[in-house]
Amino acid sequence: MPVTQPADSDLKSQLSVLIQDLGRLQRQAILRKIPVVIIFEGADGAGKGALINRLLQSLDPRGFKVHTMHSPSEEAIYRPFLWRFWIRTPARDRMAIFDRSWYRLLLDDRVNGEISDKQVPKVVREIKNFEQQLTDDGVVLIKVYLTISEEKQDQRLNKLSKNGSTSWRVTEKDWKRHKLYDEYREKMEEMIHLTHQKRAPWVRIDSTNLKSANLELLQTVTDQLKSALQAKETAEKPKTNPKLKWGTKKGFPAPLEKVDLSQTIEPAIYKEKRKQLQERLHELEHQLYKSRRPAVLAFEGWDAAGKGGAIRRLTKSLDPRGYDVFPTAAPNDLELSHHYMWRFWNDFPKGGHIGIYDRSWYGRVMVERLEGFCSEKEWKRAYDEINETEQHWSNGGAIILKFWIHIDKEEQLRRFKAREKNPHKQWKITDEDWRNRDKWDDYNVAVNDMIHLTNKPNAPWIIIEGNNKPYARIKVLETTVKALEQVL
Amino acid sequence: MPVTQPADSDLKSQLSVLIQDLGRLQRQAILRKIPVVIIFEGADGAGKGALINRLLQSLDPRGFKVHTMHSPSEEAIYRPFLWRFWIRTPARDRMAIFDRSWYRLLLDDRVNGEISDKQVPKVVREIKNFEQQLTDDGVVLIKVYLTISEEKQDQRLNKLSKNGSTSWRVTEKDWKRHKLYDEYREKMEEMIHLTHQKRAPWVRIDSTNLKSANLELLQTVTDQLKSALQAKETAEKPKTNPKLKWGTKKGFPAPLEKVDLSQTIEPAIYKEKRKQLQERLHELEHQLYKSRRPAVLAFEGWDAAGKGGAIRRLTKSLDPRGYDVFPTAAPNDLELSHHYMWRFWNDFPKGGHIGIYDRSWYGRVMVERLEGFCSEKEWKRAYDEINETEQHWSNGGAIILKFWIHIDKEEQLRRFKAREKNPHKQWKITDEDWRNRDKWDDYNVAVNDMIHLTNKPNAPWIIIEGNNKPYARIKVLETTVKALEQVL
Repeated sequence: MPVTQPADSDLKSQLSVLIQDLGRLQRQAILRKIPVVIIFEGADGAGKGALINRLLQSLDPRGFKVHTMHSPSEEAIYRPFLWRFWIRTPARDRMAIFDRSWYRLLLDDRVNGEISDKQVPKVVREIKNFEQQLTDDGVVLIKVYLTISEEKQDQRLNKLSKNGSTSWRVTEKDWKRHKLYDEYREKMEEMIHLTHQKRAPWVRIDSTNLKSANLELLQTVTDQLKSALQAKETAEKPKTNPKLKWGTKKGFPAPLEKVDLSQTIEPAIYKEKRKQLQERLHELEHQLYKSRRPAVLAFEGWDAAGKGGAIRRLTKSLDPRGYDVFPTAAPNDLELSHHYMWRFWNDFPKGGHIGIYDRSWYGRVMVERLEGFCSEKEWKRAYDEINETEQHWSNGGAIILKFWIHIDKEEQLRRFKAREKNPHKQWKITDEDWRNRDKWDDYNVAVNDMIHLTNKPNAPWIIIEGNNKPYARIKVLETTVKALEQVL
Repeated sequence: MPVTQPADSDLKSQLSVLIQDLGRLQRQAILRKIPVVIIFEGADGAGKGALINRLLQSLDPRGFKVHTMHSPSEEAIYRPFLWRFWIRTPARDRMAIFDRSWYRLLLDDRVNGEISDKQVPKVVREIKNFEQQLTDDGVVLIKVYLTISEEKQDQRLNKLSKNGSTSWRVTEKDWKRHKLYDEYREKMEEMIHLTHQKRAPWVRIDSTNLKSANLELLQTVTDQLKSALQAKETAEKPKTNPKLKWGTKKGFPAPLEKVDLSQTIEPAIYKEKRKQLQERLHELEHQLYKSRRPAVLAFEGWDAAGKGGAIRRLTKSLDPRGYDVFPTAAPNDLELSHHYMWRFWNDFPKGGHIGIYDRSWYGRVMVERLEGFCSEKEWKRAYDEINETEQHWSNGGAIILKFWIHIDKEEQLRRFKAREKNPHKQWKITDEDWRNRDKWDDYNVAVNDMIHLTNKPNAPWIIIEGNNKPYARIKVLETTVKALEQVL
């Protein structure tokens, strides 16, 4: 029995209803702060451009942005492959439409041999984790794959190239890919099989008939928005339980307990060692540059532990062209309206450069956990998210070191008081520092949890004994030099 | 008489005082929302990297960002040359330090012949206007040029290259530039002569002795911050006079008065013409892409004039990879903390692409003028700023069209009422629209001023008679097609 195509007039009335629905749902999603990501993959000649454009026509331009993802530029090549997608994830009241996406790696790069069979599981894991982080954060993710038959592709390409005014639209590359139709098809099936997830499903649309494909696309987007809005309506308010002491669980290790804070260093030895290490680091900075690998150094520690001073000694002899210090303050509006990792992705160092973070993404499992800025579910899931993200970074070649600068409560008090007495340092001590100090015990639990749960061979925590500042500074320098020497 | 060098211990104590002063002034500048831009130019081996690094050591990293400006990347090459600097201008509580700057064009590009003698005046004018826009907007701009003698340069390069652990720091390019010492020197003198401005002066620092050069640098930055803070203290609060009807000045033309709003088009002709023009535009989109020239289309008009509808018809057949629609809403926090043109620079289309602006930078001389969001001085100066900016864009190859979609007051009322009655369009009409309508006469003056003062051959205003929507849409399409045909 032949498949009956709906009459054109039917399509038209369905379409106008859908367009109105879609406009209304888009406005509601904006109001309810539901971010939307729609990605498009598909065969050449499947009408991807035309369908995206029809979708755009149905949307309020105040809410979306289209990202055409060509092969990565030089900026992107020297960063983890997800970088250029992460930085383009939408704010919570926005929609991002990707024309081609992170699936290039499982399609084009597979066909042209840049990604081997062996690498596929790693790539799939990174992609799935990325998508999960987005959907966990509330993103509605719609993945569209457009298909046409080989004959139809042949027809479309021929028709375009025979017409004088459209022949420029068919390039040699298109014909080349057309010859590889079966291979693309096979990789596509594999990709769908490997990355179809419950909350990030693939929607396959046959675009032999553009009109009905358009209808199907609008229907898909409309349905997804509708169910996301319903889900948000019925969702329970997430619990925030800042007091929860997860670390007190029986058998949970407490890495901070073993730290010996009595270590010191002689002033003369300090000066000499520091100079030596700074010079050596300057050389390594250049070797790093030539290696094109990025280095990520995160500094965390108690207030007044000496993070700033340690960073200054670390950067003292460096070439400013090779490093950046990123101070992590409370997030601004734009940062708040994105995933908590977004701003760190934005600042991710280019290959060959050093990114130094004065406080970091670990705020999620410290201040955000303890002050209730995120829900219990969110900070509990953050350990895995961070581990996966750092794994992705080091898969991309990054060298990662994380420093916890440790002092005890008495030393902190001494330093707070000294700051209050010194007119040049008074500005450094605020009421908030005293308030945080009152929560020392809670922070102690959170820090132990953090170090225990995110200390990985590819991204180790180094506990720096900080009661003696010179000792701490030398240990930071020494650790960094050794780590760079090991890999360069 | 030999110049007496200060003793090392003197330098040291001066330095520590300066560093404390600088820290304090930086914090005050942040609080008073004074943005700071420091650019560094200078000969190879003059110790630019080392001096910048010492400056950084004296600053609170929470306030600054260093931008190392290599030769432009692909992203930058296909945009006006000031683009990559504009997008990096700091927010009002930030400091941006540029290691190399927009003066590359008057140094390297002059020496290697990419900028000819004939082009110099144009480049100088663009740079001076850029700097004036920044300083008018409150930026403290410090331009530092580091010099050393030819002999000293020779010494430093030799010393570095003879030492095994530093030889990698001297490249062939460095030696090549060293041979061109005189030529660089000459261009530098010319550059300083041409671009030394009262509020953007050059500070020449001899860096033969790095220690005293460091002192001089810190002194310069400290002095400039001090006087900027004083100036801000004593500055009068700028007048805002939204009611001011500049346009009523005798003899001031009123372009809107002559518009004939009775023009219409037959539905059948409309449909046919529209389709033809859309197809033609699709072809031109590709030609534009090949030409690598950007196109900038700004849409302004009364509320309900039909901007959105006209834009939709314009983009209907385009490839979404070739254009972006930028809806211009009220600025967000980050945008508000920058120069009003900053967000439009951020969205500037890459060569070969079309940027379509649904409302634009002309908000400065309309809503910002009338609602008192900027001072009288600011909006009065904006006409020139905009003209100069658009001139810079078209010097860089941009095709610029600005549409004013015009309807009369009666037509607006009809449309407002129709929107209120249509359940699918009610969301489009808000109290603000009615409030704006009450200010029709004021807006009328502002629009007349705007069109009169910013209608330039390189960036013309096209008044679109909008009472009849089909007529308006065709005229927008036709004008765009003709303009593109003329230049492609």
